[in-house]
Amino acid sequence: MKKHNFSAGPAILPAPVIKEAARAVANYGGSGLSLLEMSHRGPEFTAIIEEATALMKEIIGLPEGYQVIWLTGGASTQFYQVPFNLLDNGETAAYLDTGTWANKAIKEAKGFGNIEVVASSKEQNYTFIPKKFSVPKHAKYFHITSNNTIFGTQLHKFPKSPVPLVCDMSSDFLSRPFNPEPFGLIYAGAQKNLGPAGTTVVIVREDMLGKVNRYMPTMLDYRTFIKEQSLYNTPPVYPIYVSMLTLRWIKKTGGLKAMHRRAKARAALLYNEVDQNPLFRGTTAKEDRSTMNACFVMSDKYTALEDEFMKLCKENGIVGLKGHRSVGGFRASMYNALPKASVAFLVELMQDFAKRKG
Amino acid sequence: MKKHNFSAGPAILPAPVIKEAARAVANYGGSGLSLLEMSHRGPEFTAIIEEATALMKEIIGLPEGYQVIWLTGGASTQFYQVPFNLLDNGETAAYLDTGTWANKAIKEAKGFGNIEVVASSKEQNYTFIPKKFSVPKHAKYFHITSNNTIFGTQLHKFPKSPVPLVCDMSSDFLSRPFNPEPFGLIYAGAQKNLGPAGTTVVIVREDMLGKVNRYMPTMLDYRTFIKEQSLYNTPPVYPIYVSMLTLRWIKKTGGLKAMHRRAKARAALLYNEVDQNPLFRGTTAKEDRSTMNACFVMSDKYTALEDEFMKLCKENGIVGLKGHRSVGGFRASMYNALPKASVAFLVELMQDFAKRKG
Repeated sequence: MKKHNFSAGPAILPAPVIKEAARAVANYGGSGLSLLEMSHRGPEFTAIIEEATALMKEIIGLPEGYQVIWLTGGASTQFYQVPFNLLDNGETAAYLDTGTWANKAIKEAKGFGNIEVVASSKEQNYTFIPKKFSVPKHAKYFHITSNNTIFGTQLHKFPKSPVPLVCDMSSDFLSRPFNPEPFGLIYAGAQKNLGPAGTTVVIVREDMLGKVNRYMPTMLDYRTFIKEQSLYNTPPVYPIYVSMLTLRWIKKTGGLKAMHRRAKARAALLYNEVDQNPLFRGTTAKEDRSTMNACFVMSDKYTALEDEFMKLCKENGIVGLKGHRSVGGFRASMYNALPKASVAFLVELMQDFAKRKG
Repeated sequence: MKKHNFSAGPAILPAPVIKEAARAVANYGGSGLSLLEMSHRGPEFTAIIEEATALMKEIIGLPEGYQVIWLTGGASTQFYQVPFNLLDNGETAAYLDTGTWANKAIKEAKGFGNIEVVASSKEQNYTFIPKKFSVPKHAKYFHITSNNTIFGTQLHKFPKSPVPLVCDMSSDFLSRPFNPEPFGLIYAGAQKNLGPAGTTVVIVREDMLGKVNRYMPTMLDYRTFIKEQSLYNTPPVYPIYVSMLTLRWIKKTGGLKAMHRRAKARAALLYNEVDQNPLFRGTTAKEDRSTMNACFVMSDKYTALEDEFMKLCKENGIVGLKGHRSVGGFRASMYNALPKASVAFLVELMQDFAKRKG
């Protein structure tokens, strides 16, 4: 049975990427060796990581002065590594609290400086993105979370800020074009739009670095990775390779503009059904709805049908639709590689279900 | 042409592991999905990481009280994460300086306490393992490096210590049985005997933890990984999966005793040739020679032939034989998965070369 993969991450990857990624494990480029067995200092992997970095710069359109580095540990590691590198004891950073991950970023940053939360939608279970706030000019940076995977909200416009933006872009990274210039640092775990779990990308404007005085272990200092082009020690070879393949696929299929067009089309199709179908309702403010993660629940009259609809989806090959426990109901994650046909298939199931039950 | 993979790491993995690992990327267990696209919270990966942890405990024979956790960042990250978790400001830890990695561990630890280097062979370019030293009783732990990948030396007996041993076992992990009881903590990057690059195993006796007072970011605290069974955030799914497959293979092919027997047989075959062949000589004290990484160079009379022998090896499908720049010459890494036939093949090339040139 054909599977429709709506997982929140690790998530669907493009079919041609999967095919080539499997071949590379069996026999890399006809070398007679698996990529898993090859030295990270050899010409094969050197070419891979250089291409991955170059494609990242090209696809986003990064200006001079920005560096792309490949780390590990996920966004959760960046929650402390960012303030560790950017914020000195006694200095202030501003944070916008828009969801579980933003909140964790705030908690971890508190160990390294004064954290000023400029606005929060926590009291309303993060159902919207706060828009009225002011960012203190004395802040070292302003931290935002571009997309909230768990609650299904997204910053459709990045806020104006008198200080450099620092952004956790994990769950909508590479899904739309953006102007990098207001950003001092961007980080993203690979396992949504970029690749499999196991690598984390950091994009940093070099002038953000070298301004704190604390003792810095070599592996925690972004400058180590910049200086050694992410090869100070053995990097996560295979996750970086698969990310490189995905970047090739993004470029080949139209770049960030095309990703955005397709994301909007998928999201419109699904949200339109959520709004029209009497059995379902969305959980967030419409203007803040994420194109990546659509959260919805059964309408109040129909809550008893939740399990039945979930069962129907599973029986029809739909994977990963269960909502996070903080929201309940359903979450359809629709990353770059998800075909619109999978969304159409889900929408049809919703329509059929409504006909039978409504 | 058949390849003989003597790479120092990432390194050769068992052929059946590679085969199954490639299948899992294409289509995991007939699910219709790639393992790269599957949620780390789903039943499939839960089963994988639980099996990996259980196999690790079983294969080593870990007593109660030891925890196995799956991290990222390599041994280089452990160089600071170990003292960060175990050593309070003002406390002392003892270190044995037996190679480049041991030396880096010392350097990173100095940020977190008093580091007492009990002995070093640095002045002799790390050609032997110092054996006469005393470990201060007031030390919190005694850090050793069980095998020195770059210099080709190995601790064939672990030193007696009045305090818990902490060991970087990266390059001979799972190559021999050992008594875990003197160890408070063991760490190993996967990319030698365990799996591909991208995950790092830490084995820790729980009573070592929770004894320092510094601020501890969630992701730097080993207890987070223990509490959440390495699933606090998204782990490196695929590297852990391939490690699990390798652990299955180790168990199936005889466990650590069999690994050790095969390692000794491979090493004897190669060192015997190095000692007999007039063109080559070993670079380390014989009693400290590593079973995992055999370093050798051309004998003094024949140094001009180095490039020619390297070329011959490459033409015959031998991969990864170039010695590290700190030693020069050749390094044959002979990890668990290397067939004895590959060593025999290299030995034959050495013999033929000697006949023609000697």
